[in-house]
Amino acid sequence: MAIISTSTSSSLSIFHCPRTSNSTPKSRCSKSRAQFPGSSSSASMDTNDELKAKFMEFPFVSGSHKKLMVELLSSVDSRLGSSLQSCTLPPDVQHFGNSTASARASLHLRSGLPSSQIDFILGGWIHCDLPSGGALNITSLSAYLKPSTNAPHFLLDLIQSSPTSLVLILDLTPRKDPISYPDYLKTYYEDTNLDRHRQRLQTLPVVKPYFSPSLYIRAVLSPTAILVGIDVGDDEETGVEDIIEHHVGPVAKEMLDFWIESCACLERSVGEDERDYLEERDGIIKRTTIEVDLGASFPRLFGQEVADRVLGVLKGYYGK
Amino acid sequence: MAIISTSTSSSLSIFHCPRTSNSTPKSRCSKSRAQFPGSSSSASMDTNDELKAKFMEFPFVSGSHKKLMVELLSSVDSRLGSSLQSCTLPPDVQHFGNSTASARASLHLRSGLPSSQIDFILGGWIHCDLPSGGALNITSLSAYLKPSTNAPHFLLDLIQSSPTSLVLILDLTPRKDPISYPDYLKTYYEDTNLDRHRQRLQTLPVVKPYFSPSLYIRAVLSPTAILVGIDVGDDEETGVEDIIEHHVGPVAKEMLDFWIESCACLERSVGEDERDYLEERDGIIKRTTIEVDLGASFPRLFGQEVADRVLGVLKGYYGK
Repeated sequence: MAIISTSTSSSLSIFHCPRTSNSTPKSRCSKSRAQFPGSSSSASMDTNDELKAKFMEFPFVSGSHKKLMVELLSSVDSRLGSSLQSCTLPPDVQHFGNSTASARASLHLRSGLPSSQIDFILGGWIHCDLPSGGALNITSLSAYLKPSTNAPHFLLDLIQSSPTSLVLILDLTPRKDPISYPDYLKTYYEDTNLDRHRQRLQTLPVVKPYFSPSLYIRAVLSPTAILVGIDVGDDEETGVEDIIEHHVGPVAKEMLDFWIESCACLERSVGEDERDYLEERDGIIKRTTIEVDLGASFPRLFGQEVADRVLGVLKGYYGK
Repeated sequence: MAIISTSTSSSLSIFHCPRTSNSTPKSRCSKSRAQFPGSSSSASMDTNDELKAKFMEFPFVSGSHKKLMVELLSSVDSRLGSSLQSCTLPPDVQHFGNSTASARASLHLRSGLPSSQIDFILGGWIHCDLPSGGALNITSLSAYLKPSTNAPHFLLDLIQSSPTSLVLILDLTPRKDPISYPDYLKTYYEDTNLDRHRQRLQTLPVVKPYFSPSLYIRAVLSPTAILVGIDVGDDEETGVEDIIEHHVGPVAKEMLDFWIESCACLERSVGEDERDYLEERDGIIKRTTIEVDLGASFPRLFGQEVADRVLGVLKGYYGK
């Protein structure tokens, strides 16, 4: 999830994703497809199911934006659901707002089972009325892996602060320094031709490179990261809806599919030293996300009391 | 120096540069100003002086481009000259070309004295006639520091393949993973507000972000790197000459000044473990520059025999 300073700024969640190289890693994920709880037709939903359904509503974003997020989350659930626990966030962290209800948010976090390579997956949306009369809407899906694999994390943030513009952050975030570990760059980014997704979006005239004001965000992303601003201006024929449906959506779905198959589900051999390295570097990434990004934005958006409550719970997952 | 595949592509030299934080490092550089040998008025120049003068001619680039390179090299010489040895490259590596003379190049490399923090500084130019009738001209200044300091290296590449366009790579290249070492990012990039130089150039309508086809180059650069394409098109009033003189030049000079004062000349405390880390990471950067970038381009530009001779000598400085 990405949190914005005034307009659009720095991202908070960080994910990664690579592919097989010479080795032939085994898939650790079940082929069975589980039903996403929020899409259940059960007539009697318990509180947790209600909160999940509320989360899946994405009530403040437009049709193709909502459709994309529901598709991505459903894909995660159907293909990785059997490796994940149910959401264990308290109800008042799954859905919360500020005292005037001008800012609202919903979070859905599922930890990986002990046998899974997945640490946790967090989906979320934030809505905030802007003093100018418009609104800021952020939707996000981030997925962290355990140090039992060195495969990248996954990160998607869609940040919309006007009906005609959007910032997109989409990446498989590296877990090792690509300079000290050139094989890592080769395996996960060069051999996989991951850059083709960025190249594809960059061909659109309404898509421009976006520079996050946070140098940490720029540094944590991969060299193939998609970090773009989309501004359709007065072009009614090619609205943001159209760009999400026909361009952002297909790329996001393809990258998530790749991450699920080749990062989350493929078993890799990681030695003890590398595991320690991954644990330490992941810890920095997760702590920075909470402290610097969310820690700076949540009090402003939701007030200190709500921010303290939510961040306090999230720190249990991201590390203190 | 940056070498181009067909049009403009990947860079070869890598440098860095930061500033003081809480510590108060001492300056290791002499305040005396030495005369740059190539600008000497001595009537009797020896072969080495002639080669230096030939290098400083930058015979294939236009007025403001040449003026900028001479100013930068003179600045290096006058402020760091007393910490550097004379160029020890053999004459046929200081100036060389291919068999048809359609490609020519000049290199000038000065190693740091044992007491200096500077490993070596390489200036160079490459000219190559293009089959299309135009020419490719690259000018470059790169400076590497020793593991006795963790300050960034310096990198400047100006790559011109048409009279109306230019690729600029200008960076203080990090020597530590900015994620595993967040203090490094803070000290050298955040606290110094280095990003202002990139922001300044990005305000010009003719300046666009440039994506190197080499993921290694994208990964090795800092989050404040200037990696831009400049295309003035048919705009006669704002030609490339004008952009170099009024925009690229001032930024390049300011960044080099900063690197000299705050990176090359400030003494820093580096422990044994950190020194080992820097040595290993620097080694990868330098070997990749020679093997991947120059190693792929020089044979194509100058033929295998000349490339082997030049690269063989450069490996003595960059590592094998």
